Amino acid sequence: MLPRGRPRALGAAALLLLLLLLGFYQLGPDLDCERSARGGRVGGRAGTRALTCPLMPRVPPDGRLRGPAVLDGALPWDHNRSACVPLRSLLPKCELLHVAIVCAGYNSSRDVVTLVKSLLFYRRNPLHLHLVTDAVARNILETLFHTWMVPAIRVSFYNADEFQSQVSWIPNTHYSGLYGLLKLVLPGALPSDLARVIVLDTDVTFASDIAELWAFFAHFSDKQMIGLVENQSDWYLGNLWKNHRPWPALGRGFNTGVILLRLDRLRQAGWEQMWKATARRVLLTLSATSLADQDIFNAVLKDHPGLVLLLPCTWNVQLSDHTLAEHCYSEASDLKVIHWNSPKKFRVKNKHVEFFRNLHLTFLEYDGNLLRRELFGCPSQPPPQAEQLQLALAQLDEDAACFEFQQQRLTVARVHLTFLPFELPPPRRHDITLVAQLSMDRLQMLEVLCSHWPGPMSLALYLTDAEAQQFLRFVEGSPVLSVRRNVAYHLVYREGPLYPVNHLRNVALAQALTSHVFLSDIDFLPAYSLYDYLRASLEQLELGSRRKAALVVPAFESLHYRLRFPASKAELLALLDAGALFTFRYDVWPQGHAPTDYARWREAQAPYPVQWAADYEPYVVLPRDCPRYDARFVGFGWNKVAHILELDAQEYEFLVLPEAFTIHMPHAPSLDISRFRSNPAYRDCLRALKEEFHQDLSRRYGASALKYLTALKQPGGVL
Amino acid sequence: MLPRGRPRALGAAALLLLLLLLGFYQLGPDLDCERSARGGRVGGRAGTRALTCPLMPRVPPDGRLRGPAVLDGALPWDHNRSACVPLRSLLPKCELLHVAIVCAGYNSSRDVVTLVKSLLFYRRNPLHLHLVTDAVARNILETLFHTWMVPAIRVSFYNADEFQSQVSWIPNTHYSGLYGLLKLVLPGALPSDLARVIVLDTDVTFASDIAELWAFFAHFSDKQMIGLVENQSDWYLGNLWKNHRPWPALGRGFNTGVILLRLDRLRQAGWEQMWKATARRVLLTLSATSLADQDIFNAVLKDHPGLVLLLPCTWNVQLSDHTLAEHCYSEASDLKVIHWNSPKKFRVKNKHVEFFRNLHLTFLEYDGNLLRRELFGCPSQPPPQAEQLQLALAQLDEDAACFEFQQQRLTVARVHLTFLPFELPPPRRHDITLVAQLSMDRLQMLEVLCSHWPGPMSLALYLTDAEAQQFLRFVEGSPVLSVRRNVAYHLVYREGPLYPVNHLRNVALAQALTSHVFLSDIDFLPAYSLYDYLRASLEQLELGSRRKAALVVPAFESLHYRLRFPASKAELLALLDAGALFTFRYDVWPQGHAPTDYARWREAQAPYPVQWAADYEPYVVLPRDCPRYDARFVGFGWNKVAHILELDAQEYEFLVLPEAFTIHMPHAPSLDISRFRSNPAYRDCLRALKEEFHQDLSRRYGASALKYLTALKQPGGVL
Repeated sequence: MLPRGRPRALGAAALLLLLLLLGFYQLGPDLDCERSARGGRVGGRAGTRALTCPLMPRVPPDGRLRGPAVLDGALPWDHNRSACVPLRSLLPKCELLHVAIVCAGYNSSRDVVTLVKSLLFYRRNPLHLHLVTDAVARNILETLFHTWMVPAIRVSFYNADEFQSQVSWIPNTHYSGLYGLLKLVLPGALPSDLARVIVLDTDVTFASDIAELWAFFAHFSDKQMIGLVENQSDWYLGNLWKNHRPWPALGRGFNTGVILLRLDRLRQAGWEQMWKATARRVLLTLSATSLADQDIFNAVLKDHPGLVLLLPCTWNVQLSDHTLAEHCYSEASDLKVIHWNSPKKFRVKNKHVEFFRNLHLTFLEYDGNLLRRELFGCPSQPPPQAEQLQLALAQLDEDAACFEFQQQRLTVARVHLTFLPFELPPPRRHDITLVAQLSMDRLQMLEVLCSHWPGPMSLALYLTDAEAQQFLRFVEGSPVLSVRRNVAYHLVYREGPLYPVNHLRNVALAQALTSHVFLSDIDFLPAYSLYDYLRASLEQLELGSRRKAALVVPAFESLHYRLRFPASKAELLALLDAGALFTFRYDVWPQGHAPTDYARWREAQAPYPVQWAADYEPYVVLPRDCPRYDARFVGFGWNKVAHILELDAQEYEFLVLPEAFTIHMPHAPSLDISRFRSNPAYRDCLRALKEEFHQDLSRRYGASALKYLTALKQPGGVL
Repeated sequence: MLPRGRPRALGAAALLLLLLLLGFYQLGPDLDCERSARGGRVGGRAGTRALTCPLMPRVPPDGRLRGPAVLDGALPWDHNRSACVPLRSLLPKCELLHVAIVCAGYNSSRDVVTLVKSLLFYRRNPLHLHLVTDAVARNILETLFHTWMVPAIRVSFYNADEFQSQVSWIPNTHYSGLYGLLKLVLPGALPSDLARVIVLDTDVTFASDIAELWAFFAHFSDKQMIGLVENQSDWYLGNLWKNHRPWPALGRGFNTGVILLRLDRLRQAGWEQMWKATARRVLLTLSATSLADQDIFNAVLKDHPGLVLLLPCTWNVQLSDHTLAEHCYSEASDLKVIHWNSPKKFRVKNKHVEFFRNLHLTFLEYDGNLLRRELFGCPSQPPPQAEQLQLALAQLDEDAACFEFQQQRLTVARVHLTFLPFELPPPRRHDITLVAQLSMDRLQMLEVLCSHWPGPMSLALYLTDAEAQQFLRFVEGSPVLSVRRNVAYHLVYREGPLYPVNHLRNVALAQALTSHVFLSDIDFLPAYSLYDYLRASLEQLELGSRRKAALVVPAFESLHYRLRFPASKAELLALLDAGALFTFRYDVWPQGHAPTDYARWREAQAPYPVQWAADYEPYVVLPRDCPRYDARFVGFGWNKVAHILELDAQEYEFLVLPEAFTIHMPHAPSLDISRFRSNPAYRDCLRALKEEFHQDLSRRYGASALKYLTALKQPGGVL
């Protein structure tokens, strides 16, 4: 590349180039170490993986590491090779690395995300993740990666159910269950043209670039097919208690939390027959596997020690209670992979556990959005969706008045569905999911909301990665929330300047799994009986999910946050008359609920129809397939109004229920509402959004949308 | 180390040891590369720095990097040496590395923290920071490091004022001001026995272990004293515009954001005379420095090219608008140090700015508490205070009922004083600082509070590192807050399970710089006139800071957050009579304010004394040197009551002011109060704290503390 500067710089630049080239040959990059150490000065680069430069990245520097180890068979390390690892510059730059992970259920799906964050933080290569999942993990992780939009990462899913029959015959007492055993079937399950893969447990954390681990493939002898780290406990020595009979293993055995697999060779060697034969033979004398796949891998390797390459212990530092890992890492400041392989996980006892926890916490709380950064130095296409967005974002004018609104609309937030264990609601003809959204500052509403609504809920939470962990602790620490299994929490990770209220509602709405939904807000407490009453109403009104009806739940407000919540409509009316309760926003935004006709509701004994009017925004029960919210409305203002308007445009009828009510609990104004109140530009932007919305309405509904023009001409007083 | 296992393992272990030792000699660690490449098998280790193993960590792999560069003098790189850098394992492990940073003012102090976080994240060596600071930065950073308690880091402060005279004669137009120039005086300012130091600008971010940079010292020739990266702009080429006359430099010159200094050699070579002579000479023809110290360093090196070692560009990737940095990093995936050396900082235009911003954001938002992890592999003493705490924490019983309370009390939170620019209040005999504390969920109170209280405020904020950035954006985006210069925000970083309310109050109280303080809470809005009225009252009552008086500001509460705030006592009384306002906690906790005697206050025309009674917790004005809060009260409950009790024990008189009032604004209950209400164990723990507190009272005040026993015997209903 020639200098772009002025012509007079050219001559000098050429001179410099020459000097630098000279310098380069003299200094040489890493891979020249062999040659230049011999004193030779060789030009050019020869960065092939075959070059065995004798550099070890922190292999145990002395015998102490495996001092207490006992390998009663042959040492499975090939002494005839210089088993060192090339430095990064020796790795084929930009090679696609393959990683396989077996993952099932809600909790493992969370663990995988932390593992992947640590992987991505240090990686410099494109990655292909092969995820063997159950339906739950697939739903979560597919959505997550789709919305994460990390460049240079591909994800393939494999249905764990399809392979279960291959391992379900094996009796197993390990906590990882059947899924632990599935690592055995990877050579058959992964694509037949995939030759190498690194297999990881969900409970490992990377502290290093995975390419350095991948580089060990270059050091497999022709016969070796499996790379493993020694097991860092005495388990396989069989002397932990009287009559302790572990599965057979080479000495201390190997740990299968991190495995390098030469899939091609395993397939050729008849791996499936091999492990099944070994497992069947051992199971003649032992009743079950204790450590799932690890027992079987060890038994096979005891029979075939030539298959395994021993990896340095730092690539799988095992933190069980009685681990011997200290002998590994205390000598090596280069920790590569931490393995939380104790059922106690992060509560494990270990002298340095604080250190390891901090490393893990780093990625637990790391803002995953930051990993959307492009992969430097390798030609990496961002995901197509991401590319379009980037283009659109780049075209925005940073100094435009409504830049933040435009930016927020173009932002795709990362979504982690059903962050916590969740049980599907029983199949019922009529059931109702309460749908709402919140951020950290409304967390304290959850417990009381649970006491008011026993039915299923689908809640979208707008949080940072660190807040997600606070949320997790909050739920786990709450006697009320920790036992509720019919509340699904969908995490939408914070991204962009404004609260994406309608996008959040849509995320929660899309995950509601019952026939109907109650579209609520997090600061409302429904009547204690509302869930049952609504279901009964659906029955009585014979409202199938086909009928376009919106059941209106009248809204009230308490100005006092120590409200004695009314147990019945009669009590509510008494409080209303006593001035302890009010109709919702009676003073600042009466038009929001005026069509509900509170006077009529007082007396009503049966549901009654009402007509839509401008600015109407009641809380309603709808069939699950109702229209979505318009996600252009971000921050504060007009977000529900637009939705109700859309219902009317689609000819939904509005029916007010005579016994239903919900009460708004007071809270300090949100930051968004404060901005709205104090900032005229904010209101101008909202007005522009409304106009755009109306143009879309006209396009979609034609002349019949004309009547909504008045609704849009309202002054700024929206709520 | 012999195996700890059963004796039968011993023989096998010995065998293994032998095998491993053999393996070790064969495989060898990095530093053996030279020898084993020659085919030799040499035992032992010889990890000295003198060994020049020809390994380069990503020196520009080809000529392109400096393709556009022009060095019109001799290339300051010593061709006669193998100027490679040893790998980490060749670095003297655990060597103490010295880093010098010049830092002045509030904003730079924030920048330094981010820089230090990135440094600590990657470092594996003990560090000694030498901080040349003004008084502001010193106060902030001294407190920060003292409370951060990072192991294996020493911090020394040097008073920038002492050295200013050495550079103040130099005309300078650069935005870094006089402080930029102070880098020139480091050889004289730092301790005379300090031989080497890495000098960093506050606007750099590390992406790598600083030890790799330190390793370049080993590659200085005997004559070289200064290590620098080339400047990545055309500035010094002098062709940016007509008559552009930069200071003299070698070609494109050097950037001084990252400097390696051999202080010993510079002192010996008469550095001070050298740079002063050069600067004086150049200033005969040029009117001022444009780029502060950098101009002078370059002019000196133009005269003495033999002094400089050129460092690889990746150690100072400069992100100005017109930077040529791309030529550096686009070829090198190993970015080492990013330098935000544009006045636009993170808004700089650059093709890859998103990537760099993400790296910077990583550390901006990184939980600094995680960096308290011990330094592995090096014998590092934690700071003595930290060690005591760790011992005490380790002695706690994790399963004890009040474990969280005990843990929180032992926690030392990291404190960043005056996070934002702050102007000292003008010296006045009587002035009052409003003192309060808050966390993220009360941020929206700040604007309105500012409109009620024009005087100085000292606020403690309990935030995570990421929230601190949200807070910063919030203040910068607020037309009200961004212009207020008499509000000091003190950040206390979240740590531990409970809200350390009294510790926060103490942090804010200690930073109040006026004669008196008004101890308030963040959800109270004082009367608009209160600040002036209180100052007038102090005058009239002739309350010097010596008199032990607590001026009581009667507290009211609004149940409605859209209160029309009373402009006078008369309006307040009218609202009270109309039922729109109440005396504070009249319904659930009347004893908290009963002694204030609201009935008497209605009629009062002059201050009147009141007697302490159990559970009294008024909002009061006190001399600045008043008793501190008892920090054992964490979470919710009894935190103010204990303080008022202590005032009474110390014989403060309570005087109620007839025109003063403050009003509590409603908000949703905090998470802590929710826990208190729902959890009997929490109340038990609080009771235990109270008993402990009373024992301490008895110890300190003897028999006179007996009367407080009744206060402690109250049932749990505390607020």
